[in-house]
Amino acid sequence: MSRLFSIVASSLMLFSSSVYADFEPFQPLPPSPPIPSDNPQTAAKIELGKQLFFDKRLSATYTISCNGCHNVMSAGDDGKAVSRGALGIEGKRSSPTLYNVAYQTVYFWDGRAATLEEAIKEHLISPTEMGMKDKQAVVERIWNTADYPRRFAETYGKGVALSYDSITKALAAYIRTLRTPDSDFDRYLQGDKDAISKQAKRGFKTFVDVGCASCHFWVNLSGPVPGLAFQMGEGFYELFPNYPGTKDEARYQLADDIGRYYITKDETDRRMWRVPVLRNVALTAPYFHNGQVKRLEEAIRVMGTTQLGKDLTPAQQQDIAAFLHTVSGRFPTQRFPELPRD
Amino acid sequence: MSRLFSIVASSLMLFSSSVYADFEPFQPLPPSPPIPSDNPQTAAKIELGKQLFFDKRLSATYTISCNGCHNVMSAGDDGKAVSRGALGIEGKRSSPTLYNVAYQTVYFWDGRAATLEEAIKEHLISPTEMGMKDKQAVVERIWNTADYPRRFAETYGKGVALSYDSITKALAAYIRTLRTPDSDFDRYLQGDKDAISKQAKRGFKTFVDVGCASCHFWVNLSGPVPGLAFQMGEGFYELFPNYPGTKDEARYQLADDIGRYYITKDETDRRMWRVPVLRNVALTAPYFHNGQVKRLEEAIRVMGTTQLGKDLTPAQQQDIAAFLHTVSGRFPTQRFPELPRD
Repeated sequence: MSRLFSIVASSLMLFSSSVYADFEPFQPLPPSPPIPSDNPQTAAKIELGKQLFFDKRLSATYTISCNGCHNVMSAGDDGKAVSRGALGIEGKRSSPTLYNVAYQTVYFWDGRAATLEEAIKEHLISPTEMGMKDKQAVVERIWNTADYPRRFAETYGKGVALSYDSITKALAAYIRTLRTPDSDFDRYLQGDKDAISKQAKRGFKTFVDVGCASCHFWVNLSGPVPGLAFQMGEGFYELFPNYPGTKDEARYQLADDIGRYYITKDETDRRMWRVPVLRNVALTAPYFHNGQVKRLEEAIRVMGTTQLGKDLTPAQQQDIAAFLHTVSGRFPTQRFPELPRD
Repeated sequence: MSRLFSIVASSLMLFSSSVYADFEPFQPLPPSPPIPSDNPQTAAKIELGKQLFFDKRLSATYTISCNGCHNVMSAGDDGKAVSRGALGIEGKRSSPTLYNVAYQTVYFWDGRAATLEEAIKEHLISPTEMGMKDKQAVVERIWNTADYPRRFAETYGKGVALSYDSITKALAAYIRTLRTPDSDFDRYLQGDKDAISKQAKRGFKTFVDVGCASCHFWVNLSGPVPGLAFQMGEGFYELFPNYPGTKDEARYQLADDIGRYYITKDETDRRMWRVPVLRNVALTAPYFHNGQVKRLEEAIRVMGTTQLGKDLTPAQQQDIAAFLHTVSGRFPTQRFPELPRD
């Protein structure tokens, strides 16, 4: 905890010593995210990953693809509170957007995966997601699809086997292309002072002044990014709810799930959560780990009571919402993949 | 029936008086399909139709889009015997590919829809497909999605309401873009004599000689196309099984469904079916109205016993399969749509 507080404290010091628009803590989305040295981006691998991403063969019942819950045509999520996996079982936490996850230092709401590849490995065999029996079943499924073995050989070279590793690496390579640069806020940060409205500017100031920015800062508005203060696998967590026992907590069951504690069994991790990415937040309702809040203004209000111990006024809520609308970026133009046929 | 037989008879006469490659009955896919005068193609309408095609909001439970059963990334169908709709109910007939349906004169396996628009209107409210309660529910669903009313106004102009009609017209406009020209067979027909292999040429000759081509001819290898002998809404039907009581019929339950009879209640329509499109057939297993036959060579063998009263030799089956592989065309390059968010 002390590490977290020191980070937050130093961020706040940084804020208070600068003019808003010049805050170092707010930066446009970098053109390229960190790429792991053992999984370089290649055009062939990205295309193969895209095929796999849309292929229902990766689910136990052949009924869903990755895109089912992370719809890249629809801001990268499914708009549902929680999603139902291939086996018909609902997950307990809301599917987050995949756009810009390449800039995260840890994955899942509780940060239990240190890399995107590791997260994908869990998704494929999770009973509430793709539901495949085990890693071997995934490999066999792909191996037995006419065109995939050839595609893998072309992509990785003859020396690399079609394996759970090479499947997840291809998926990760594709997902790392899912970035949304050029938001109005990015252009504002780059010096175009008219890129965001007066209300959005007021909202940005409020966002910083009331304390949202203590956690939601840097390129993804989710705290440190890899190589910037934190390394890959090192999570930036916050207590949520930070002011326990509010009416909003009860109304939206915000404390029923105690987050990172389930992973570490460490009392200091009770109700600790990875600080979520706010890029494209206006497009990715519903909100919070359990998807219980449907509207952005209401999510902002609830963050006030549960995290800041403050009753934000309707005007403050609307101003912050106007600001958050400016962090919706430009979604990449993508071509449909052609899926292999048996 | 007499009309059908006269068409078939005249086709066969045409065949016997020509050299194979010069058969009028076999023609490359025309660059443009027939477009109804009350639903002209426009870029805006096609894009809107693509959004709707991928939008799960068009299903009762928000769980499937048109693309769920007609996957345009995967040759236009779902590779299943039959599909499960939004309400969890399985249909009785296999979802056909949507590629090149623009050239059909009637729709559904039994030809009960005279136009693509009419077919779509049924799909949306069918309990085994999109499962929407009624037409009004579809309109309300779209009307209540933030961005759609604006998109409809932009597409159709202010005079045209967002209606069941305009929704289905947009979907039809998009689906009419799903064409696969430039198959090897098309290039062969256009004079490139090396475009198909010797085995495929042998298979083509066998396809004509044994009688497949009596029904599977013209641009879609499914009989007359609109304006060419038949008008829109006028179906080209055949008896199936034509030789009833075979072992194959029992094995694959081919006569359990008596097709067009359910629509007309006319005894002459018992076991009558629209002659299916063969373009891309090698990519659209499983086969027949009930999807019970998994492999192309087996489907060819079964067509021999049930339709032609012939036991095709394994060599004949393989040759015809080689020919049918040459009618897989070039799938269009498509960009992902961006779906409206609430």
